Amino acid sequence: MVIRPYGYAIWESIQDYLNVRFKETGHSNMYFPQFIPYSFIEKEASHVEGFSPELALVTIGGGKELEEKLVVRPTSETIVNHMFTQWIQSYRELPLMINQWANVTRWEMRTKPFIRTLEFLWQEGHTAHATPEEAEKEALQMIDVYTKFAYEQAAIPVIVGRKSRAETFAGAACTYTIEAMMGDRKALQAGTSHNLGQNFSRAFGTQFTDENGQRKYIWQTSWAISTRFVGGIIMTHGDDAGLMLPPRLAPIQVVIVPIWKKADEKMGVINAATTVEKLLKTAGIKVKLDDSEQRTPGWKFNFWEMKGVPLRIEVGPRDVASGSVVVSRRDIPGKPGKEFGVSMDPSVLEDHVKSRLEDIQESLLQRATLFRDSNIVDVSSYEELKVAISQGKWARGPWSASDADESKVKEETGATIRCFPFDQPQGRKTCFMTGNPADEVAIFARSY
Amino acid sequence: MVIRPYGYAIWESIQDYLNVRFKETGHSNMYFPQFIPYSFIEKEASHVEGFSPELALVTIGGGKELEEKLVVRPTSETIVNHMFTQWIQSYRELPLMINQWANVTRWEMRTKPFIRTLEFLWQEGHTAHATPEEAEKEALQMIDVYTKFAYEQAAIPVIVGRKSRAETFAGAACTYTIEAMMGDRKALQAGTSHNLGQNFSRAFGTQFTDENGQRKYIWQTSWAISTRFVGGIIMTHGDDAGLMLPPRLAPIQVVIVPIWKKADEKMGVINAATTVEKLLKTAGIKVKLDDSEQRTPGWKFNFWEMKGVPLRIEVGPRDVASGSVVVSRRDIPGKPGKEFGVSMDPSVLEDHVKSRLEDIQESLLQRATLFRDSNIVDVSSYEELKVAISQGKWARGPWSASDADESKVKEETGATIRCFPFDQPQGRKTCFMTGNPADEVAIFARSY
Repeated sequence: MVIRPYGYAIWESIQDYLNVRFKETGHSNMYFPQFIPYSFIEKEASHVEGFSPELALVTIGGGKELEEKLVVRPTSETIVNHMFTQWIQSYRELPLMINQWANVTRWEMRTKPFIRTLEFLWQEGHTAHATPEEAEKEALQMIDVYTKFAYEQAAIPVIVGRKSRAETFAGAACTYTIEAMMGDRKALQAGTSHNLGQNFSRAFGTQFTDENGQRKYIWQTSWAISTRFVGGIIMTHGDDAGLMLPPRLAPIQVVIVPIWKKADEKMGVINAATTVEKLLKTAGIKVKLDDSEQRTPGWKFNFWEMKGVPLRIEVGPRDVASGSVVVSRRDIPGKPGKEFGVSMDPSVLEDHVKSRLEDIQESLLQRATLFRDSNIVDVSSYEELKVAISQGKWARGPWSASDADESKVKEETGATIRCFPFDQPQGRKTCFMTGNPADEVAIFARSY
Repeated sequence: MVIRPYGYAIWESIQDYLNVRFKETGHSNMYFPQFIPYSFIEKEASHVEGFSPELALVTIGGGKELEEKLVVRPTSETIVNHMFTQWIQSYRELPLMINQWANVTRWEMRTKPFIRTLEFLWQEGHTAHATPEEAEKEALQMIDVYTKFAYEQAAIPVIVGRKSRAETFAGAACTYTIEAMMGDRKALQAGTSHNLGQNFSRAFGTQFTDENGQRKYIWQTSWAISTRFVGGIIMTHGDDAGLMLPPRLAPIQVVIVPIWKKADEKMGVINAATTVEKLLKTAGIKVKLDDSEQRTPGWKFNFWEMKGVPLRIEVGPRDVASGSVVVSRRDIPGKPGKEFGVSMDPSVLEDHVKSRLEDIQESLLQRATLFRDSNIVDVSSYEELKVAISQGKWARGPWSASDADESKVKEETGATIRCFPFDQPQGRKTCFMTGNPADEVAIFARSY
């Protein structure tokens, strides 16, 4: 997959936000090599089992057959642990909290742009701690950073929870996840945070000397969000007219379309449009003036709607005469989304645009939340689950059944446990599959 | 090579600066896949000849032998052209100006941290134009962006010029380069900008329809700076005590070391140091307060000198009493680099620190320029060149000899033509090798 400038700019918005959060929470960026000796991958048993079908292998380098095959990283836990083992001597070096922005490769047969690609871009955090409590706290902190990002920046009302054993990351003790409902009601795993326990530190011998002089294995986490999230934004908010981007992540927040018919109108319109452009740019708004003469205003309206620009400002000769503009919202089609006669006066227009962008941000989240909630069905029997899933919905119900039952559900309905949500209903629960007591409800859905 | 947080932060400073310049000059970031079908690499004859000894090849994916080997990108001209051929239809789509930040792989036998590594990080710009004039202008513009970056941000007085035919990028019509003199007086190629002419567009059939409806091949450029530049900074400014980082790229510009002996002094010193830290942070200065109690002030002085932090502020009990601090410059060792009794008053201290950082930035450039100029020898015979090179210096002299003569110089002295500098002496020139008239002087040096 090639990521073209507009899509890449969304990824850059995501990076800008997360980089600040990662640094605030004490992480430093760094970079590990992408070629991992095959023997590293083999060290953690469940890790190699999970990843070996998806590996790309370099076998020739500099014209020669290599003695040891190199894995093009599918994820970096193994090489990170190889280095941590050399760097960490004592409790004084802990916690060690790092992150890298990198490309990763997983050999996929059925690809889908942004969602499932052979190569993708991501950030992967890796941390080492002296105690299991610290590692657990870190894993939870980072899934919380992702959750806030999804809600506040991407306007995606993800459901945060814990993965089932079967769906846990290969090598992790526990995986936390944020699950998003796409427009077609399929679930998308949009970010994960793993408590790795001591699985990798035991496999790699990553030990530290504690305050009492004893050698102990470190406790670890890893966590990631990828360019898949760009696909999540597109498929959460998009409609038949194209993308609909949340203002806080949109590469272009406002597009200005000047409109004129007669030559003598042109200069006044372009001047006014340029003034508006400068005003908004100075106010820190990402604005584009589309003054190309090769296309009609109508064509431009459609084009920028398709691109998902949240707000459009139209400037015509009448607007110039009255010192006002027309402001149109991408999220409300047609007349209801239009405001006429919005004053061009800087003190008015800047506030107006900013507050409309906030309105749109909020409205996208609200709409997505309503959509999500009206498509989750509480079930108390396997039959009810089957009905819900066959209607394309998500099913939520008490679950304490076996891994075998879980894979039976998958075989028979195509749905998997997306997570045991953190947000649990009160009261006694009875597993809808077995009739046994259950501690938690799980959410089942078909997924990407 | 693993790039640890401190080194990576230097790379992030480089990225922050260049990203702004690239966008100002009309380029958009995007991302191309790193696996390139082997058949793409073979299309441009001199390109495959130049790169084939350095390729890493993926031959197994998802457990199966691949029908076509995949090259792990050593550079992206071929895949870029494969895509450009699909994207570009008409002159309206030109110029097309993009950049990507990515990892690249070149199979190196003799590696050296940052300077020559099997995998490295870089940015690669790729542009397509309708005319050769535009492509040439772009190639020159970007080598100028690099030159300004080197001088103004990295304090490295590079020499900018054109590569000889033998040293031109495999597939380019012409390569421009910035050459830096390291502390050991070896040359480092620190950035290049290539006018690719129509070499790749002819190989890939990348055509556009011009304003008269005619099909024409596009004209192209590519240009890159890599993590090698981090090595260039280290080896230009470093001394026996460690790194010496130019303030504009330093991850930490000021380190504050609190000093106390008695317990009752501690609180006052830490409070004052923390106040200074906040003041400088608010002023946008990258500051670190090293208040750890595991190390002595003397140890910290050495440590942060080794890390190349430009400015150190010491705060002791006497300073607290007098409301002042001690400010020490990394670039001037011992007493001469120390200023005592600098007022803690915010209005004084902020300006003082900022102006000292500027002084250091300027002084590093000045020092490096003096060093460079005192190590370039003008030669008018091959004998003089041999002497200069054997003394470890750079030799500059008129050159119009053959490629064969150029490789003879390399064999006999180890020196190559680094560039024909843009800045040429006036007057008639006679080739020091052949005695024939020469248009230009060339610079010869041993290099990394």
